[in-house]
Amino acid sequence: MAVGPFDSSIYRMLLRDEEVAACFDDAAQIESWLKVESALAKAQAGIGLLPADAAAAIEQACKTCDIDPARLAARTGRDAIPVPALLALVREKLAAEHADWLHFGATTQDIVDTGLVLRLRAVCDIVDARLRLLLQLLADLADAHAELPMIARTRRMPATPTSFGAVVAAWGAPLLAQIESLAQLRPRLLRVSLAGAAGNAAALGPRSAELRQALARQLDLVVDDLCWHTDRSALLELASCLTRITAALAKFADDCLFAAAPEVGELKLPAEGGSSTMPHKQNPVLAETLLALHEIALSGDAELRRAAVHRQQRDGAAWLLEWHALPQTCLAAGRTLQIGLALLTRIEPNAARMRANLEGVHGLAHAEAISFRLAQQVPRAEARELVKRLCKQAANTDANLVQLVAAEFADVDWQAVVAPEAQLGDAAEQARRFAELARAT
Amino acid sequence: MAVGPFDSSIYRMLLRDEEVAACFDDAAQIESWLKVESALAKAQAGIGLLPADAAAAIEQACKTCDIDPARLAARTGRDAIPVPALLALVREKLAAEHADWLHFGATTQDIVDTGLVLRLRAVCDIVDARLRLLLQLLADLADAHAELPMIARTRRMPATPTSFGAVVAAWGAPLLAQIESLAQLRPRLLRVSLAGAAGNAAALGPRSAELRQALARQLDLVVDDLCWHTDRSALLELASCLTRITAALAKFADDCLFAAAPEVGELKLPAEGGSSTMPHKQNPVLAETLLALHEIALSGDAELRRAAVHRQQRDGAAWLLEWHALPQTCLAAGRTLQIGLALLTRIEPNAARMRANLEGVHGLAHAEAISFRLAQQVPRAEARELVKRLCKQAANTDANLVQLVAAEFADVDWQAVVAPEAQLGDAAEQARRFAELARAT
Amino acid sequence: MAVGPFDSSIYRMLLRDEEVAACFDDAAQIESWLKVESALAKAQAGIGLLPADAAAAIEQACKTCDIDPARLAARTGRDAIPVPALLALVREKLAAEHADWLHFGATTQDIVDTGLVLRLRAVCDIVDARLRLLLQLLADLADAHAELPMIARTRRMPATPTSFGAVVAAWGAPLLAQIESLAQLRPRLLRVSLAGAAGNAAALGPRSAELRQALARQLDLVVDDLCWHTDRSALLELASCLTRITAALAKFADDCLFAAAPEVGELKLPAEGGSSTMPHKQNPVLAETLLALHEIALSGDAELRRAAVHRQQRDGAAWLLEWHALPQTCLAAGRTLQIGLALLTRIEPNAARMRANLEGVHGLAHAEAISFRLAQQVPRAEARELVKRLCKQAANTDANLVQLVAAEFADVDWQAVVAPEAQLGDAAEQARRFAELARAT
Amino acid sequence: MAVGPFDSSIYRMLLRDEEVAACFDDAAQIESWLKVESALAKAQAGIGLLPADAAAAIEQACKTCDIDPARLAARTGRDAIPVPALLALVREKLAAEHADWLHFGATTQDIVDTGLVLRLRAVCDIVDARLRLLLQLLADLADAHAELPMIARTRRMPATPTSFGAVVAAWGAPLLAQIESLAQLRPRLLRVSLAGAAGNAAALGPRSAELRQALARQLDLVVDDLCWHTDRSALLELASCLTRITAALAKFADDCLFAAAPEVGELKLPAEGGSSTMPHKQNPVLAETLLALHEIALSGDAELRRAAVHRQQRDGAAWLLEWHALPQTCLAAGRTLQIGLALLTRIEPNAARMRANLEGVHGLAHAEAISFRLAQQVPRAEARELVKRLCKQAANTDANLVQLVAAEFADVDWQAVVAPEAQLGDAAEQARRFAELARAT
Repeated sequence: MAVGPFDSSIYRMLLRDEEVAACFDDAAQIESWLKVESALAKAQAGIGLLPADAAAAIEQACKTCDIDPARLAARTGRDAIPVPALLALVREKLAAEHADWLHFGATTQDIVDTGLVLRLRAVCDIVDARLRLLLQLLADLADAHAELPMIARTRRMPATPTSFGAVVAAWGAPLLAQIESLAQLRPRLLRVSLAGAAGNAAALGPRSAELRQALARQLDLVVDDLCWHTDRSALLELASCLTRITAALAKFADDCLFAAAPEVGELKLPAEGGSSTMPHKQNPVLAETLLALHEIALSGDAELRRAAVHRQQRDGAAWLLEWHALPQTCLAAGRTLQIGLALLTRIEPNAARMRANLEGVHGLAHAEAISFRLAQQVPRAEARELVKRLCKQAANTDANLVQLVAAEFADVDWQAVVAPEAQLGDAAEQARRFAELARAT
Repeated sequence: MAVGPFDSSIYRMLLRDEEVAACFDDAAQIESWLKVESALAKAQAGIGLLPADAAAAIEQACKTCDIDPARLAARTGRDAIPVPALLALVREKLAAEHADWLHFGATTQDIVDTGLVLRLRAVCDIVDARLRLLLQLLADLADAHAELPMIARTRRMPATPTSFGAVVAAWGAPLLAQIESLAQLRPRLLRVSLAGAAGNAAALGPRSAELRQALARQLDLVVDDLCWHTDRSALLELASCLTRITAALAKFADDCLFAAAPEVGELKLPAEGGSSTMPHKQNPVLAETLLALHEIALSGDAELRRAAVHRQQRDGAAWLLEWHALPQTCLAAGRTLQIGLALLTRIEPNAARMRANLEGVHGLAHAEAISFRLAQQVPRAEARELVKRLCKQAANTDANLVQLVAAEFADVDWQAVVAPEAQLGDAAEQARRFAELARAT
Repeated sequence: MAVGPFDSSIYRMLLRDEEVAACFDDAAQIESWLKVESALAKAQAGIGLLPADAAAAIEQACKTCDIDPARLAARTGRDAIPVPALLALVREKLAAEHADWLHFGATTQDIVDTGLVLRLRAVCDIVDARLRLLLQLLADLADAHAELPMIARTRRMPATPTSFGAVVAAWGAPLLAQIESLAQLRPRLLRVSLAGAAGNAAALGPRSAELRQALARQLDLVVDDLCWHTDRSALLELASCLTRITAALAKFADDCLFAAAPEVGELKLPAEGGSSTMPHKQNPVLAETLLALHEIALSGDAELRRAAVHRQQRDGAAWLLEWHALPQTCLAAGRTLQIGLALLTRIEPNAARMRANLEGVHGLAHAEAISFRLAQQVPRAEARELVKRLCKQAANTDANLVQLVAAEFADVDWQAVVAPEAQLGDAAEQARRFAELARAT
Repeated sequence: MAVGPFDSSIYRMLLRDEEVAACFDDAAQIESWLKVESALAKAQAGIGLLPADAAAAIEQACKTCDIDPARLAARTGRDAIPVPALLALVREKLAAEHADWLHFGATTQDIVDTGLVLRLRAVCDIVDARLRLLLQLLADLADAHAELPMIARTRRMPATPTSFGAVVAAWGAPLLAQIESLAQLRPRLLRVSLAGAAGNAAALGPRSAELRQALARQLDLVVDDLCWHTDRSALLELASCLTRITAALAKFADDCLFAAAPEVGELKLPAEGGSSTMPHKQNPVLAETLLALHEIALSGDAELRRAAVHRQQRDGAAWLLEWHALPQTCLAAGRTLQIGLALLTRIEPNAARMRANLEGVHGLAHAEAISFRLAQQVPRAEARELVKRLCKQAANTDANLVQLVAAEFADVDWQAVVAPEAQLGDAAEQARRFAELARAT
């Protein structure tokens, strides 16, 4: 019975991304290894290193052997690698003369790493597709609210006006970069591994380079001239990219949580998440879960970095650790994207509350605009000091800054100066430019 | 199908500690929550807050309801907490007038945290018992080899002679501290949680303190006067203690891996871990796995620390994260202890290789002893410089330091000076003292 | 010129705890090492291992040598340990016959670790004293506002009423545990190290145990029978404890930041932190800095855990890493306590805003109280469903829950039921009990 | 007096990379901020937003003001940002009518982030140059020893023969990828920041986009259409890349440390690192330091990831944390490259010991080659089992595997089969191909 939240029957519908899970579950692992063994035999036969009938038999056996993962348990417990156990089971399905050619010249790491890469390609595709979808949603939201005024908050305090569209653009901007980054790392990641026990292809024979090419063609992967048994840097690149994605969505979630507090009320989040004792409770489950998943992704990524230093020509401890760390990062990132999509389709900005908070306490949000307008009449330093003084006065006397400044400088049309629309700068342009970039991905 | 290595059918026999897993799997969680709900009703009835028949019915329902974890999935996916779903299922088993009293005045966190503590008590017991067992084995090993000379290695280089028993004592010393530390944190950890929705027991009525005592008696837990909904520090203490244990065993494992390299040959490890292509391969699977598990424990612990800052009166994101992080640390620590025990019963020191390595290259390991002996005849600084010079000469001319010094100071019985037995200092005493302390735990 | 924020002239007044810095700066390190060398000579002379005049000369030289840290740089750059360089400088001050006895039989690690422990004792004292001060402030605040009603917030949403005093008690509770925890770990931490090059005291001669006792008396430290060169677990315990403290203050800071948002307005923080462009800006600098410092402490602690696995009999890489990680944790924790004290003396609760937020949106915070009161008249499940329905109705029609329920159940005195004072449960008791416990530390 | 090892006078020559430090020390920070303020005024004047004489005066003041970092301390301690303090000092040097135009419309973050990017550009250049140098050295080493046989070790145990050149190629391969990765991230990183208080350039006026272009031209940076105040992902990319570099050098260091153990003897490391008590000691300081620096880099990188989630439109806590984390990563990576270069020029392979270790214990390293040769005569499975049996027999009877198999299969030329040269596979090709790729960077 499951102990991990991604596998638990209890938490599964909260935390498990079934699509990404299908790249890492026991069946997917076995299937990918069999696919590699099969492709290897085919590639070897293709260049005459193996009898054609042996390759055909191996291909057939790999396709039909239907291996129960539990049958690998005992031997994997002993070897700490799953391939010897797997080979034993596949060989049961093969005539002795064909069995000899299974896994010919390869080492476990060739099979496991190439199998992993095949599954990571699927993960990249899933992530890329969801990122694009998410960017479309963000684009629509940014576009629709490009000019909706709200208060910008810096260092947890009201700053000056901006637009909700610009805020949405800032949520999405790091995702644009990650689409690019993911595309750039793919050729470094999606490489075939075929280097044999010591990484020098000794048992693969003198035509190992040709064979590697043939295998790569079979699996539609890239070939690297150098063995990457101990070079895990492309895996690190992928995981880092995934945590940059979860960070972007954690920021989005955190902003949502603040904005959805009833005292703030600028966003309405989907109503869910009941309590066992409080009848009125509707908890912001999706946003909370995004925060937790970001931490889980980060922690998987950090653990993966511990697994990056492979001693000598293969490091069993580091490699084993990688098997724990990398799926965790992918699973958390995948679920993050799913929940991000769900949340994004359902948040609703509340323009009235945004406007009210913008005017907020004593009109202080207009201080910068007032200061810049005043600087047209008095030296800037003086203007700044004056506004500072009026800000304090407003706070102390519960007055409004705009009225205080109007009392001193009656000839300016202060309502025009402090109209949020007049203070948005290029917020709307940023919102629309983001939408454009997001739709062009 | 499982995606986590602790749940995977493939890796289960390598990584899963079934005993600790039984504290964290879905069934264990549900059972612990039911136990708390049942004990709460009983405690409430005991002080007259509940009709006795309602409590009896609740106890009976909790005992017999046999809940399939999967039935909690849908609602837990919505609420991000499992208790509302659980209560709905238990209430199905109860007459309406009894169902009203189930979970009376409590909040989900009271149930989940108290349930967790009950399971962590079992974890503490398991860890404590295994630590004691491990210390017995280490004690025997230290005792048996208290005077077996080997080279001490500092900063990866041969230093001066010591004994294998002293090395074993150093492996075990941090575990002695953890037995003490674990005992000290138990009262901070094993507390009942009963504080209601907002942590002030409002819905539990005016006799909440009395009720809390009664519940604690039912469950044999400690009572704290203060609500600990947001105070996760005792959980952090436990996890830290567990990673100090895994660190100690990682050090042991790493030392074993070096010593078992054929070029070193000082320890023989259990022969296992076959390769898919190299017939002679027997990999040090147990020691490798200890290294990986330490990283997994550390990473769970680091993640738990991210979950320590609970916002306001309950933080859904932090709490959810804790459910991922804490079991991971416990599972990794548990398996570490199991494997540590397995490895420790099967390592064999090789006295001949230890002696050979001690004499090693040019007798340099005797440099400190020679230098101290010489200082009885010439000033220390001079002695030190002289020995330094002879060390270089030995290295450059492929000579032996002892012979070189004997050539210059013929009147000293250098064989007596450099006899390993003469250079062990209190190594044997430390080994025996450790054994004594370990056996006294 | 400094590159680290703790040493930077620019950031120093923001981040540097001068009192703790004085335990870790170059001068403090050198002074502590000299103190240990001096005490060692004295202890050796005390039991007759050294001529009394040599010991006196060494003591004198250590006291007066006034070493410029920069003079250690070149050789420390080569050795990666500072003691050989230090000894060379001290020996310059000694007659040749005395110089021989300096550092007699000891190894660098004995000096550096014992010196560290002396400085960590000061850190423990500082932390303990500040914790007690902080607890007094928290006690006063909890006491003063034990019955001040405010809304409890769970999972980022209003829950039910509680008191500000209870909230303060929850801020302080984890600190009570850390005072206890710190006291328990002290004897494990404050140990003399004197074990010689290989950890077996070989060069210290046959009376090493007696000598270790004598040295411990000199320095008022504990003696351990076992060498702790490779056992860093007590350092880990200290760092863990420090991060539990910073976590508690990060929680406090985060709660303050939310409560100080003008839209919430429940707390007023000290007004500081100006902007370069916005005249009205007063940023919550203290609370922000607490959040950053907690991360810095956590990261030092995590790094220290990487340094816990010492290979063989001394691990240069791990030890070097410790020198980076441990001071960072102590410095961040020290500054955290200073800032926590500064912030705590200056936050002001706003009772009116607390009350307003409590009544909040549609009176939903009273839902649990209403539901429990209704359950006296109708079955609990029915009461809960009824209140759920009314909550939705209140939200949809912009009505108040209390009025809605009063319309349906006119015979109940609902104002009495929903009076915050009636819903505080044991909040006031917890606040006062905390104050009592805090004052008793 | 310094508390951080990078600033300490004691440890400076061990740990401080003066060239990278010069990008992060107080003076460099101030200089970069002044450069941005100056360029901003010039850019504003260039498009007519500022009087030309004001811009000239500002440029002059920024160039000549020579600010003592300590003068920023007090106000930075209050504001938690250094720019208001800096502006006050620069304004002292300016006539009032010019002072008004300093920092016109900008916000602190524009200055600090653009200033940072200027310094990170220098860091990228330093890293890139050193990587190329390192790759040249590795290329030479790989080339020179492309065919030097040694034993490959997998999972800490001897596997099959390979060449030292191939081992060197594996050390260098991840660095090739990092050169590429660093080049790809540069345009995402080296962006001007100019977005004003709320990120929408409101106070910069309607020509903010044009101004941003002009500023970028001044500083030779890229322009992004979107404000990146809260998007720290490019910084994360840089730090991740740096830790992939330190990981590669940590692997190199760890391999060196094992190979340099006298029992192994395959590599000779530079002789340094004296002990305070052991005359013969020469510790592998450079390799040890690489391991420690990798951990320090990783820990800075992990900390930076904690700083990636910026709340709302600017997060003071996250930003402050970044100022601690990012320099640490850069400093550690810079020093890593320096030490890597130093170590790499000075390691010497020992061909004789490599050969001896290859033949090693009982000739077991030839098991795979023997098994593949045998498979030409008997079925593979049978061959494998046979060799397994002979391996055990060799171990148990202290015999040599090659002799045992020759006794059973006398007709094969076993010396030809087990000649290391016959078992190198494409090791030499990999070594040479790596050299070619490295030289082509």
